[in-house]
Amino acid sequence: MQETKPKLTVVKIGGNVIDNPLSLKGFLADFSALEGFKILVHGGGKVATKTAENLGITAVFHEGRRITDKPMLDVAVMTYAGLINKDITAQLQALGSNAMGFTGADGNLILSEKRKNSGVDFGFVGDVLAVNANLLKLQLEYNIVPVFCAITHDGAGQLLNTNADTIASTVAVACSIYFDVQLLYCFEKKGVLMDSENEESVIKNLTFETYQALRSEGIIHSGMLPKLENCFNALQQGVRQIGIGSPDMIKGESIYTLITP
Amino acid sequence: MQETKPKLTVVKIGGNVIDNPLSLKGFLADFSALEGFKILVHGGGKVATKTAENLGITAVFHEGRRITDKPMLDVAVMTYAGLINKDITAQLQALGSNAMGFTGADGNLILSEKRKNSGVDFGFVGDVLAVNANLLKLQLEYNIVPVFCAITHDGAGQLLNTNADTIASTVAVACSIYFDVQLLYCFEKKGVLMDSENEESVIKNLTFETYQALRSEGIIHSGMLPKLENCFNALQQGVRQIGIGSPDMIKGESIYTLITP
Repeated sequence: MQETKPKLTVVKIGGNVIDNPLSLKGFLADFSALEGFKILVHGGGKVATKTAENLGITAVFHEGRRITDKPMLDVAVMTYAGLINKDITAQLQALGSNAMGFTGADGNLILSEKRKNSGVDFGFVGDVLAVNANLLKLQLEYNIVPVFCAITHDGAGQLLNTNADTIASTVAVACSIYFDVQLLYCFEKKGVLMDSENEESVIKNLTFETYQALRSEGIIHSGMLPKLENCFNALQQGVRQIGIGSPDMIKGESIYTLITP
Repeated sequence: MQETKPKLTVVKIGGNVIDNPLSLKGFLADFSALEGFKILVHGGGKVATKTAENLGITAVFHEGRRITDKPMLDVAVMTYAGLINKDITAQLQALGSNAMGFTGADGNLILSEKRKNSGVDFGFVGDVLAVNANLLKLQLEYNIVPVFCAITHDGAGQLLNTNADTIASTVAVACSIYFDVQLLYCFEKKGVLMDSENEESVIKNLTFETYQALRSEGIIHSGMLPKLENCFNALQQGVRQIGIGSPDMIKGESIYTLITP
């Protein structure tokens, strides 16, 4: 007989939730009400861009991709690990969730390596190497609700800016040793769409088979491809199911895309 | 027979250590080498003042005391909980200490209340109400090295700027239920001085009796009085001994002031 693992929900939110104090408040109330073990991963938001602007720091891009130089890393650490992470933590505490805000450096929870310079130097950007799932499990067992921002470290004293979607999926994968993991990606749309012009054309269920078919027909394309490849990788590595949709998804009421192997 | 409690050292550092990257690096190496359980508490530093300046935020003072308005609180959260705390955490990780950076909101570790307006509104400043020593003990037992910045919360979603010396003493007092606690205040002098003009006139041992005598003789005066009152309060509430001196104190080599009941 297979041992039943406890349920864990990993939720990722982005700037669309964080930038609006009222939607953030509503979301955190819903998140706080979620049953079972849970982890929140948040991206940045306009406050980072605004702080950089106010400090006179100019964003550097290479072929549309942001370069994280030292001043921009400092802004990311200040706003993601400071302002946003601690505001969310304090708000969750007020809602009765024993939240604890983390970067990857804290407890060596997420170790990453500086992205190799393959023609383009992205600066202080980290690719995740390892998640300390054992320590995360201990925290969860003490009723702690971990709240991750998108900052990790290289183990040699350097903080690194890291993609929040990747943090969510690697944390979800690592925790699936101990937990029955559901991963929820909240974003600005209601799900993966059949027709990108029609907000209501949400694909309700997606398996690797239907994904491959929709991709070959060109229905799923461009920006959605790496996101979904990332999802199917996570499912292959032990995550039970993944939801992609609006923040209302966590209430279980709204329509969203449910991705299973 | 009395049960022997495990030893815990709580170390507080201020801007004089934090502002100089080389002294911080050296200090953290010494701190990392300290045996037994340990907790670090750090104050702010010039980076907060500089960030506020760069953001065009002006410090407001009332009779020499800083008022923490909302923009200044945001700067404190960005720099103390963000930049400084996470830099120290990442550096300690590189030195082999499993550091975890905390505000009081994280795990509800330090609950405070907004200072009452008694004529002067100090703004978002918190006075400590309670320390979650039980959760701190659990973290320490998992070999975690807690690193506190001077930000707490009120339990209702509001972050509050809090005096780092007070955080160090209240954490030390709360932990003395479980631990044999030594509290070390590192500051810019070598200790409590017999003659404030003579850096070498360090008072090596101070008990409440000798303190009272030196105070009535006017030898210990002004800014040192609240600091020492705070120390004797902590000793009365269970802390075993307190050191006041330069950061070299933690190596046990240098001359410093040892305060015992």
